[in-house]
Amino acid sequence: MRKKIRVRAGDGYDFIIGDGLLSSAGELTASVLNADRIAVFTDSNVAPLFADDLEKRLQKQRFQTCRFVYEAGERSKNLDTVSAFLDFMAEHDLKRGDAVIVLGGGVAGDMGGFAASIYQRGIKFMQIPTTVLAAVDSSVGGKTGVDTKYGKNLTGTFWQPSLVLCDTDTFRALSPDDVLDGYAEVIKSAAIRGPRIFSDLEEGKFHTAMPDIIARCVNIKSDVVHEDERESGVRRILNFGHTMAHSIELKSDYQISHGKAVAIGMLMVTKASEKHGLTEPGTYDRLYQLIHGEGYRTETDIPLEELCEAARHDKKTTGDSIHLVYLEKIGSAKTKKVRLDDLYEFMNV
Amino acid sequence: MRKKIRVRAGDGYDFIIGDGLLSSAGELTASVLNADRIAVFTDSNVAPLFADDLEKRLQKQRFQTCRFVYEAGERSKNLDTVSAFLDFMAEHDLKRGDAVIVLGGGVAGDMGGFAASIYQRGIKFMQIPTTVLAAVDSSVGGKTGVDTKYGKNLTGTFWQPSLVLCDTDTFRALSPDDVLDGYAEVIKSAAIRGPRIFSDLEEGKFHTAMPDIIARCVNIKSDVVHEDERESGVRRILNFGHTMAHSIELKSDYQISHGKAVAIGMLMVTKASEKHGLTEPGTYDRLYQLIHGEGYRTETDIPLEELCEAARHDKKTTGDSIHLVYLEKIGSAKTKKVRLDDLYEFMNV
Repeated sequence: MRKKIRVRAGDGYDFIIGDGLLSSAGELTASVLNADRIAVFTDSNVAPLFADDLEKRLQKQRFQTCRFVYEAGERSKNLDTVSAFLDFMAEHDLKRGDAVIVLGGGVAGDMGGFAASIYQRGIKFMQIPTTVLAAVDSSVGGKTGVDTKYGKNLTGTFWQPSLVLCDTDTFRALSPDDVLDGYAEVIKSAAIRGPRIFSDLEEGKFHTAMPDIIARCVNIKSDVVHEDERESGVRRILNFGHTMAHSIELKSDYQISHGKAVAIGMLMVTKASEKHGLTEPGTYDRLYQLIHGEGYRTETDIPLEELCEAARHDKKTTGDSIHLVYLEKIGSAKTKKVRLDDLYEFMNV
Repeated sequence: MRKKIRVRAGDGYDFIIGDGLLSSAGELTASVLNADRIAVFTDSNVAPLFADDLEKRLQKQRFQTCRFVYEAGERSKNLDTVSAFLDFMAEHDLKRGDAVIVLGGGVAGDMGGFAASIYQRGIKFMQIPTTVLAAVDSSVGGKTGVDTKYGKNLTGTFWQPSLVLCDTDTFRALSPDDVLDGYAEVIKSAAIRGPRIFSDLEEGKFHTAMPDIIARCVNIKSDVVHEDERESGVRRILNFGHTMAHSIELKSDYQISHGKAVAIGMLMVTKASEKHGLTEPGTYDRLYQLIHGEGYRTETDIPLEELCEAARHDKKTTGDSIHLVYLEKIGSAKTKKVRLDDLYEFMNV
């Protein structure tokens, strides 16, 4: 099965998903990149699995390739790694017409995209996501960035890839835990705008028809981003569950991963909004069943006060308020401006 | 005298030039920025002259201000300074709706604009150029960046300011040498697209009607940039004299400043193009008279071979060629694709 979604962001680009796509990586790259040199940006876990094969296929299409491998993990996601990669590209004499291919998960995508966006004021890049999270989340929206000591993704740009090539075979290398991490964003997409996807998930179709489900989620995100490329309005709904999630990640010192934190965050806000009468009764239950049924933790022992306090430093706050995203019902999200001083009271149900 | 030019880049912004404009800086800022906090980014030379006054005027308009001062000079123009400023903004809790005001010359503009463009994926910024070079060159075009060990401006973005506020009174603090540095870009603008400005310069009007001349040059650059925002076609003519200039700067270890290098670069390429019959006879003479008359050096003792070799690493090269800009005649520029291997032969006249 192979599916192609046209993402309407920037000049527009294709998101192609299917089994065994890596074997066509050379031709597909040649169809969008007119580069002499391609720098493959990848991490120490992914490189041994797919990088040799990818480079060989690129070279067959007469691309000159070079490879930059960083130590896998969120700890590498900083300006130092980006700076080292920028120097690497200069050493390998990449020009403005050359390009980056990011091979890896969300961290690789965020950093590699960021580096591409600032190298010589911006060169093209392509993404080959090797995690569900990267496929469904980071590959659409053009967000790039690195963490600083003050928080996640505090430094970055909006920069669109020329192509996203998602070979679902690469997911076989993922642990069940890694899959869970990405699945949370799938549930989120369904919850905010995909009522039928949500029903399909309840029937277990994520596991039996993953490429199809991911493609439909990418479509949702693409639509939302298209309506609001620079994140000032409707795009905020993509942050469903994320305000609490960011706090959970931060306060757990990133021991609780993004997807797991989002799962808990979605439940927390939905429990509260349903109690406040903003959400159709029963919504929390459906969400809980789905999330709990997949084996996620459904709550955190970090005190709510601390989570609400940490939210003050979230970059999505405007002045003394945040736009909290909640579900009207499954498949439909809204935002509500909540003063930071009132956040604890709202959430404490 | 106060003049306003609408720069048609990005969403468009105003370039305002005149005497004593700083006294209206508060109101003018309030007219374009809806920020709570403003970070003033400036250097150790400029800060003592204008920063107190500027901040006071901003505070009168209820902006909260903070000030980041870096050590003046091109040596500071690197990712470390930008990174320190990014941390400074996070420490001072700047949000996405907040903004940066760059107060200073070209280095400040390039770095401050770059930092604004990547802080939380981009916040607004305003420029208050305090050098002729920054006013006429860096304030239009949206180019931001820092140097790396591999070259100048190798890392950066395109990011447009919300307003450029050019108080020509600030130029009084400049040495005659600093003025010369900016004047080279004025001559360049006139040479490539402003035949009447060029005549005015020959009559000495740069010194008697500077705001008017600068405004007209800004207009030229604005038109060119508008026609080609991402620098793939006509915008290349703005690089008249710059291929050799970049090499001269590099090979002199940046002892020869940008403007001085551009003056020499314009003469070198015009001498060559006129010899090759590409340029109306007499053009070199007019350019030489003007440049020499202002007291610039008109040649360099760096061997031409070395300059041509250094040009290979210029980021404007595409593959094995460069687009060399030359004058057809005063006020009209063209580009010619020259193979890097043939550059020495072309220039060696």
